[in-house]
Amino acid sequence: MNAEILAVGTELLMGQITNTNAQYISSRLPDVGVNVYYHSVVGDNPERLKECLKIAFDRSDVVIMTGGLGPTQDDLTKETVAGILNRQLVLHEESFNIMKSFFEKLSRTMTSNNVKQAYLPENSIIIKNRNGTAPGCIIEEGNKVVIMLPGPPTEMKPMFEDYVIPYFQSRAGHKLVSKYIRIFGLGESAMEDKLLDIIKGQTNPTIAPYAKEGEVTLRITARYEKESEEKDIITPFIDEIIKRLGDTVYSTQDKNLEEVAGEMLIKKGISISIAESCTGGLVSATLTDIPGISKVFDRGIVSYSNRAKNEMLEVSDDTLKMYGAVSKETALEMAAGVRKIGNTDLGLGITGIAGPGGGTEDKPVGLVYVALADKDSVQYKELKLWGSRRRIRHVASLHAFDMIRRWILAKEDLK
Amino acid sequence: MNAEILAVGTELLMGQITNTNAQYISSRLPDVGVNVYYHSVVGDNPERLKECLKIAFDRSDVVIMTGGLGPTQDDLTKETVAGILNRQLVLHEESFNIMKSFFEKLSRTMTSNNVKQAYLPENSIIIKNRNGTAPGCIIEEGNKVVIMLPGPPTEMKPMFEDYVIPYFQSRAGHKLVSKYIRIFGLGESAMEDKLLDIIKGQTNPTIAPYAKEGEVTLRITARYEKESEEKDIITPFIDEIIKRLGDTVYSTQDKNLEEVAGEMLIKKGISISIAESCTGGLVSATLTDIPGISKVFDRGIVSYSNRAKNEMLEVSDDTLKMYGAVSKETALEMAAGVRKIGNTDLGLGITGIAGPGGGTEDKPVGLVYVALADKDSVQYKELKLWGSRRRIRHVASLHAFDMIRRWILAKEDLK
Repeated sequence: MNAEILAVGTELLMGQITNTNAQYISSRLPDVGVNVYYHSVVGDNPERLKECLKIAFDRSDVVIMTGGLGPTQDDLTKETVAGILNRQLVLHEESFNIMKSFFEKLSRTMTSNNVKQAYLPENSIIIKNRNGTAPGCIIEEGNKVVIMLPGPPTEMKPMFEDYVIPYFQSRAGHKLVSKYIRIFGLGESAMEDKLLDIIKGQTNPTIAPYAKEGEVTLRITARYEKESEEKDIITPFIDEIIKRLGDTVYSTQDKNLEEVAGEMLIKKGISISIAESCTGGLVSATLTDIPGISKVFDRGIVSYSNRAKNEMLEVSDDTLKMYGAVSKETALEMAAGVRKIGNTDLGLGITGIAGPGGGTEDKPVGLVYVALADKDSVQYKELKLWGSRRRIRHVASLHAFDMIRRWILAKEDLK
Repeated sequence: MNAEILAVGTELLMGQITNTNAQYISSRLPDVGVNVYYHSVVGDNPERLKECLKIAFDRSDVVIMTGGLGPTQDDLTKETVAGILNRQLVLHEESFNIMKSFFEKLSRTMTSNNVKQAYLPENSIIIKNRNGTAPGCIIEEGNKVVIMLPGPPTEMKPMFEDYVIPYFQSRAGHKLVSKYIRIFGLGESAMEDKLLDIIKGQTNPTIAPYAKEGEVTLRITARYEKESEEKDIITPFIDEIIKRLGDTVYSTQDKNLEEVAGEMLIKKGISISIAESCTGGLVSATLTDIPGISKVFDRGIVSYSNRAKNEMLEVSDDTLKMYGAVSKETALEMAAGVRKIGNTDLGLGITGIAGPGGGTEDKPVGLVYVALADKDSVQYKELKLWGSRRRIRHVASLHAFDMIRRWILAKEDLK
C-alpha cells in the first residue's frame, strides 16, 4: 500500500511552521507496511484543496490529511472531503458531549464554531482527540482510505499512535517491527565504523542510523510473518550491536536520555538536587517532565549570578574570585553545595558559557562544566560544545543526564 | 505569480529529515510578490518525479525544485526536467572548472559522477554554488519558470538569496508585506467573533488566524504597488484590530510572549526572582533562553516538595497544612518569599497539578496558581488548564510571562 500525506494550512505555505507532521507520519508508516510516495501541502482554499484531493485519490491508496479541522471559517478539510465522496456531515453525539463537558469544565462558552467540529462524515471511524476539541476520522471508500487528523502535533501524534497505527496493523498480512537503539557519547561516523559490516550486510532486519544534536539513534526494522519469529530475527541482531557499542547505548525502548536517567532515579529511590547556572533551569525542567519524579527530586536552584551561587549554594567567594564562575572548581562546589542543602543522595552542578556573548579566549562560548556529588566524592566533566545558545544548553543538559545514568550504572556494577 | 515548491528525495519520504527548505523558501517568496500555493515531495523515482513535474507545470507559474542534483545515480532532477522540456544537457565550462579546482584543492579525484553535475539544461541561467559541487539553474519556458536548487540547506539558502530573490525582484510589479499580530488570553473563536466583519470583508489586506497551544496569531498581508502605500494599507487595518482586541495583543513583531516579557524586563531594568513548583524550572529555563537576561535575573528556586517551599521560600507550615501546596495562599507566599530572598523588584510563584496523576475532585489536574509579588502587593491568577503534562506546564508558563508583561504595562499606564 502506498500513501500520500496531504497537509492543509496556509501557515505552512507562508513558511511560518515546518511540516513536522509529514516527517513524523512518514517515519512511522513503514512500521505497518505502508510506503509513503508523496507529501503535499495546500492552503486553506477550497478549490485548490479539492484539486489536491483528486490527485491524491488518483495516485495513492491511502491519503492521510493533517490540519484544517479547527473551528474557524477557513478550516475546510472535512467539508471538502465529504463533498468529493458524496457523504453527509453528521453530528457525532459522543464528540459533541465530550466537547460540551470540556467547555463546561473550563467555564467557557461553546460557540457554533466549536459545534462544527463535532460534525463528521457519515460512516466513518471516529478518532478521539485527548488533547484538543477536533476529532479525526478514518473513511474507507472502495479500496482507498482517507484519514483526517488535526494539525497541532500534540493532538495529532497520540491520535495517530492510538488509532492509525493499529488500523494498518490489523490490515497488513505480515508485520514489521521497529526497535530503536539510542546512543549517547559516540558520533555518527565512529558508530558507523564499529558497525560497518552489519550495515553493509543488512537484509532482514534492516538498520538505519540518524543523528540529532549530540545523539545517534539506530532504527532496526524486522519483517516477520508469524508472532513467534520476532524474537528470533531482531533480538540477536540488537544484542550484537549493544555488545559492540557498550554503555554508549542508553535505551532500546526509544526513550530519551532524560527519561532513562530520571526513571533510573525513581526506580532506585536515589534522591537528587540540582544547581544550574548556564542551563538556567533546563535540567530541572526536563527532569520534572517525568511523572512521579517528586519521589526523588525536591528542589533545584538556578544560581545565575555569583551572589546567588555564594548565598544559596555556599560556593566560596575565594573560588569564584580565583577560578571564576565558569570553572571546574565552581561546578564542584555547586554540586556539593546543593547536595548538602537538599540533603539528597546526589547533587548536580552545571556552569558554563551558553553564548552568544560572554566568551573569552581562555573561556570560549560552549565551555561547560558539569559536576556530580555523592556522599563520598565529586566528579566532573569539561565540555567544549558548539552551536547556538539553545543547542549548547540542550547538549549540556544531556551530558548532565548521562552523568547521572552512568553513576547509577557504576553503582550497580559494584554490587 | 503563484509557485510550487517541489522537493525531490526519498529521505524526506522516509521521515529522516524535515523539509525545512520548503519553509525557508515559502517565508521569503511573498517578499518578492510570489505566492506559494503548493508544496510537494516526491522520492528519487523517475516516473513519479515526471508525473509530479507535469502536475506542477500545469497548476503553477513557478516551480522551485530542491534536491536530486547530487552526483549519484538516483539524482535525477535535471535529467527529468530536461526530458520534459525537450532540452539537451550541455557541459557548463565554468561550473566544470570550478568543480575541477575544488577537487584539486582537496586532493581528491573527480569521478565521472561528479562531472555529471556540471551538465545543465541548455539556455538556462546558471546559479553558482559557493558551498558545494552542484550548480543550480533557472529555466524560462514560455510564461513558466523552473528553478533547480540543491537539497542541503547550507548550499540552497545562499543560492536562493543571491540569485532567486533578485530574479523575482526584477520581475515583480508589486510587493506583498505580511505583519503578525500575536494574541494571548483570547481563544480562536472568541477572537473571530470580535473580528467577524473584518474577516468576512477582507480583500487587501487579507487576514488569516492560526492557533497554537493557548495562543492565537493573525497574519495580515497587504499587497501594494508603491513603497509609500505600505503604511496606508496595512497600518490602519492593524490599528483597528488592536483597538478591538486590546491588551490581549502582545506583539506585532512576530515575537513570542516569553521574549516580549523578558525584553520588557531587561529594557526597564526590572529585576525578578522565580519560585516554581509544578513547572519545575520551565519558567526560569525559558527566561534564561533570552541573551542578556542576567542583567535582571539572578536566581530561581524549584521548590518541588513542601519541605523545599518551607525551607527555601519561607512558605509557612500553617499555610501548607491549611490550604495545601496547590493553593492561592501558597502561590502568594512563594512569590513574596522568593522576591525577598532574591532582593528583586518582582517575585513570581507558581504551583499546580501538572498531571497525569495527583488530581482530586477539589483540585483536579490542570489547576494552577500563578502569583506575582512587587514591593506593595501580591496578585494571583487561578488557571484551569487541560491537556498533557507538557501542555499544562507550557501554558502555565505562558500565563506567568503574561502576568509579568501586564504588570509592566500597568506600571507604564500609571506614569
